[in-house]
Amino acid sequence: MTSALVSSCGEQFDRMHRQSPLVQCITNYVAMNYAANVLLAAGASPAMVHAPEEAGEFAALASAVTVNIGTLSAPWLEGMRAAAKAANDNGKPWVLDPVAHFATAFRRKAVAELLALKPTIIRGNASEIMALAGDASSGRGVDSGDSVERAEASALLLARQAGAVVAVTGAVDFVTDGHQSARIAGGSELMPKVTAMGCALTGLVGAFVATAPATPWQATVGALACFSVAGTQAAAQCAGPGSFAWRFIDALAALDGEALQAQAQVTPV
Amino acid sequence: MTSALVSSCGEQFDRMHRQSPLVQCITNYVAMNYAANVLLAAGASPAMVHAPEEAGEFAALASAVTVNIGTLSAPWLEGMRAAAKAANDNGKPWVLDPVAHFATAFRRKAVAELLALKPTIIRGNASEIMALAGDASSGRGVDSGDSVERAEASALLLARQAGAVVAVTGAVDFVTDGHQSARIAGGSELMPKVTAMGCALTGLVGAFVATAPATPWQATVGALACFSVAGTQAAAQCAGPGSFAWRFIDALAALDGEALQAQAQVTPV
Amino acid sequence: MTSALVSSCGEQFDRMHRQSPLVQCITNYVAMNYAANVLLAAGASPAMVHAPEEAGEFAALASAVTVNIGTLSAPWLEGMRAAAKAANDNGKPWVLDPVAHFATAFRRKAVAELLALKPTIIRGNASEIMALAGDASSGRGVDSGDSVERAEASALLLARQAGAVVAVTGAVDFVTDGHQSARIAGGSELMPKVTAMGCALTGLVGAFVATAPATPWQATVGALACFSVAGTQAAAQCAGPGSFAWRFIDALAALDGEALQAQAQVTPV
Repeated sequence: MTSALVSSCGEQFDRMHRQSPLVQCITNYVAMNYAANVLLAAGASPAMVHAPEEAGEFAALASAVTVNIGTLSAPWLEGMRAAAKAANDNGKPWVLDPVAHFATAFRRKAVAELLALKPTIIRGNASEIMALAGDASSGRGVDSGDSVERAEASALLLARQAGAVVAVTGAVDFVTDGHQSARIAGGSELMPKVTAMGCALTGLVGAFVATAPATPWQATVGALACFSVAGTQAAAQCAGPGSFAWRFIDALAALDGEALQAQAQVTPV
Repeated sequence: MTSALVSSCGEQFDRMHRQSPLVQCITNYVAMNYAANVLLAAGASPAMVHAPEEAGEFAALASAVTVNIGTLSAPWLEGMRAAAKAANDNGKPWVLDPVAHFATAFRRKAVAELLALKPTIIRGNASEIMALAGDASSGRGVDSGDSVERAEASALLLARQAGAVVAVTGAVDFVTDGHQSARIAGGSELMPKVTAMGCALTGLVGAFVATAPATPWQATVGALACFSVAGTQAAAQCAGPGSFAWRFIDALAALDGEALQAQAQVTPV
Repeated sequence: MTSALVSSCGEQFDRMHRQSPLVQCITNYVAMNYAANVLLAAGASPAMVHAPEEAGEFAALASAVTVNIGTLSAPWLEGMRAAAKAANDNGKPWVLDPVAHFATAFRRKAVAELLALKPTIIRGNASEIMALAGDASSGRGVDSGDSVERAEASALLLARQAGAVVAVTGAVDFVTDGHQSARIAGGSELMPKVTAMGCALTGLVGAFVATAPATPWQATVGALACFSVAGTQAAAQCAGPGSFAWRFIDALAALDGEALQAQAQVTPV
């Protein structure tokens, strides 16, 4: 029997394809190309616009904004703040991806400022989410040193503190709005071996949340399920991380709501 | 019977391979890697040099300059102006790619400044070219909302106003210098699903126009024909946008003037 | 019979895999994604951190720093200096990749400043190394116009002047610390046709040198041997530069110390 949550994943995907939402992605230099290709393959319309002079103006046109601090710098932070504010002012959802925010003082301060702008959704790996909730983590650089399981309590706490949906991604993802939670299985062990997968997923969360009428929690579950299903398919055919990267794009482009619904491994908690 | 224009495409391609022109590409973060690989595959020598401190000095060394405003920022705009001026001062052709120039005030002003520096060639999608000619367009973000056919009159007008070759790319491309025009068919429906294809094409136009003695109009037709032929070949073998991207590079690298001439779908108008 | 140097390549590779060193890569926009994927495939943990506000702080956490001036700008140069200084202050090795340093005054000055910060290893193409040693070179843009063989004397001179290991990469690589030297064969003619290969190699040199107890000279030989073996394998299966790029990643990810030792073409000079 298919749960309502799993049905919602398929319906969201088809609706997203039809609407092709304009998603403003402020992401890092490493991820820009791959994230744009992921969004295009999934049927969305990505736009990489970051300059302080236009980031806010553009956010008013977009259906959602995503902010990833991977290769942060002072002018980019200014653009991120402008876009997040404009998203709020225009009632548009925005997604925060706090890459390695614990690593330096510059990142910690930047993320504190961005959190104060009330992201709709926060997506990170276990170490990032644990550190954001004030817990001790084993993060080092951009890779997680902790399991998603260990981060679930932190995610619940952070979701309530920040009034946001929190997604912890890893072997089995965990998504919560502080009240409802779900786990998403699938994907592949190769995914952490391909750079920018997490950043691209943040963009895809933006594409799903841009598509009404799903709630931000449902949209996040839908995006993560979509990513995991495409990841499982790509892994079944590839010979390593190099071929995984493009097979993942092909798998996403071939996906539809029916297949997503049939293959999604989503468990409400 | 092969038209003189189609023969010219093949001859230009072989000459470009032999000369391997140094092309300075000031392009966006999304496109840089793919554009560089496209130019290398086609036999040119790309150099991504944008800083205001050196963009002008480098332009004097290059055989052509290309300027794409995809991920525009204030310091990059300064580098673009310096490179365009130096290209003009040294009699080098330069190509303008006005990505989503209608989307924000910052872009509109930047493109007005760049247009005043008299680009040799302007390449854009239908919405970009229509908006540049002062016509109403349906552009949204970086994707075109209009057909090339609808933009042909705008292209003619813009070519005469700007004294430039204007290329509108889409399902069937249109190239005009305001007097002579041609349409280029071929390519694939997957091309708009792969990010940075248009930006890479702008770089390839730079490589062709760097190669005397073709006129800028012939060079633009040659580059677009080359792109379309490689696109058709890649699409015939690929399983989606992920595999299209690398098969397109392989197809370009395997192309020669003879094959290009045999397969180019160029129609003088 | 396997030389001690070749055995060292295999041992280093396995140790690097086990340690997965955190390597801070300050590299150019063109190379960032590919370099990160190369390091991940080889088992290292890359982090692209460049902002002046955090580059030095992060370098203290990393096991090695790599600096590539491909798309240089003033704020990035500030971050490069901060990271190089912090590497020195914390006894961490750092690698300099002086891309096209001869092309403009801005680059020449930047590289002089970076050289004064005493890189552990310098990696470049023949034209770059010759120009760095004060010799006449035929470099143009980012591509080498000289053979590695012609650059060997320059490399020896530069190694002694700079007190650094110098690697000249090309058809047959040459590595020297001014006293010991080696040549590394293998790889593929396609490698110069794929952008960012050299920049990614610089990152891999960082990953090897981050892994004690090999000397910087041994580490550089190890990284170059690893790159050449993967390049040979990728070339044997690919249909052009587009497929070479991802097959190279797959080959690196499938490599282990034993295979590397068996296939490395390393000759002490």
